[in-house]
Amino acid sequence: VPHFRVTLAYDGTGFVGWQRQADGESIQGLVERALADLDQRDVPVVGAGRTDAGVHALGQVASFELQRIIEAPALVRALNARLPAAVRALDAAAVPEPFHARFDARAKTYRYRLWNGDVISPFERDYAWHVPGPALDLDVMAAAAPLIEGRHDFASFQSVGGERRSTERTVFWSRVAGAPAAAAETRGGAALITYEVRGDGFLRHMVRAIVGTLVEVGRGKRAAASMAGVLAARDRAAAGPTAPAAGLFLVGVEYDAQL
Amino acid sequence: VPHFRVTLAYDGTGFVGWQRQADGESIQGLVERALADLDQRDVPVVGAGRTDAGVHALGQVASFELQRIIEAPALVRALNARLPAAVRALDAAAVPEPFHARFDARAKTYRYRLWNGDVISPFERDYAWHVPGPALDLDVMAAAAPLIEGRHDFASFQSVGGERRSTERTVFWSRVAGAPAAAAETRGGAALITYEVRGDGFLRHMVRAIVGTLVEVGRGKRAAASMAGVLAARDRAAAGPTAPAAGLFLVGVEYDAQL
Repeated sequence: VPHFRVTLAYDGTGFVGWQRQADGESIQGLVERALADLDQRDVPVVGAGRTDAGVHALGQVASFELQRIIEAPALVRALNARLPAAVRALDAAAVPEPFHARFDARAKTYRYRLWNGDVISPFERDYAWHVPGPALDLDVMAAAAPLIEGRHDFASFQSVGGERRSTERTVFWSRVAGAPAAAAETRGGAALITYEVRGDGFLRHMVRAIVGTLVEVGRGKRAAASMAGVLAARDRAAAGPTAPAAGLFLVGVEYDAQL
Repeated sequence: VPHFRVTLAYDGTGFVGWQRQADGESIQGLVERALADLDQRDVPVVGAGRTDAGVHALGQVASFELQRIIEAPALVRALNARLPAAVRALDAAAVPEPFHARFDARAKTYRYRLWNGDVISPFERDYAWHVPGPALDLDVMAAAAPLIEGRHDFASFQSVGGERRSTERTVFWSRVAGAPAAAAETRGGAALITYEVRGDGFLRHMVRAIVGTLVEVGRGKRAAASMAGVLAARDRAAAGPTAPAAGLFLVGVEYDAQL
């Protein structure tokens, strides 16, 4: 039975998230229906990350088996012919039998986008968190972000409902970058701020809770150095609020080279 | 009576265009309803450019009068509170009485975005023309674009239904720029190609016809130097096809400094 790994990009707006739900359209459900149509049987699909409703992906990875013999480029075309334009298969590869998109993932990278300005661009309304009010202090946010790098218990950044047994994770890097949005597209000095984090795994809402905390740092509500104390507390109440889903992108998933 | 000039950005997806129509939602209609609610009377609104259905704006300019006395920042907030997130007022200014957003415009800049690659990013599906197939020759497109600069009769680039008496216009500059799309977001060497043009006025579908012609140049279907012959023909059949609306953005409108 041929096993496949497919890289997917999707605009999560209007979907219930990656995972199948009782109500509403999921990315997993769309991919499974496309593959069922192709393979004329049920094809369970595993995704590397369970992105929430409204969360986007630039490089989600999915694994599945097909009965049908098909070349990878033909599989990409067949999927895209059966998926809505909001979901695209970017590439596909035949993989060794035991491959599992979630369990075999070694690292994931997420990006979070913030719009800091009075009026958010209409083109960013589903792709960034609108943070109006005074300019966030980018320097202090950039200083705070790396303080969570390394192996830590991230329980303070896990939402209720997170079911993982261990809340220890390794963050390989964590960083904030900001750029004034292009002059022609904004007025009044709005800034698009990007946060990116790469780790070996993430707890439920972890990236969004980190971002909510960093925004409090940027507003001067807490010091950059407080990130260490937040980690040490192992208490969700110690961190900032969970940032909205719409600003979050799963950028990519990494595997061992032989997979 | 206070006269105002307002700069608007909008995501044209799903709208019938700037101009009010018998059926469907227009940007003009949304702005007029928001202002009618604010001023408790009908407020006719003039737009600098009549963007078509699906065409976007980063800096459309609208003019109107209000009975109500209101400061410009309050007007921006009042408009945004009454408009959908797809349409944003970016700034406002009180202006001399005779100001007319369309007749007083001295220059407009448009941008057109092309996605040249097998699979278009889901985030570009409403904001770029998907041109699959072999890579377009950017160098030859970049050489062709400026050949329409200057004062010319642009009848070859005007769609049927264009009602302007004169088809002479001045193009101040016309240029193509291309950049490989960010590696994480695409596979297989897709490129996002941007065309920008600034002129004193544009005929119906003129930018889209220029882009359709430039794509034929990029495909090797016609030579860069053929642009002069297309202009000289004064015949729509001499130019390439009209590119789709979704890739087009009205970037900005310029007025005399005292307006």
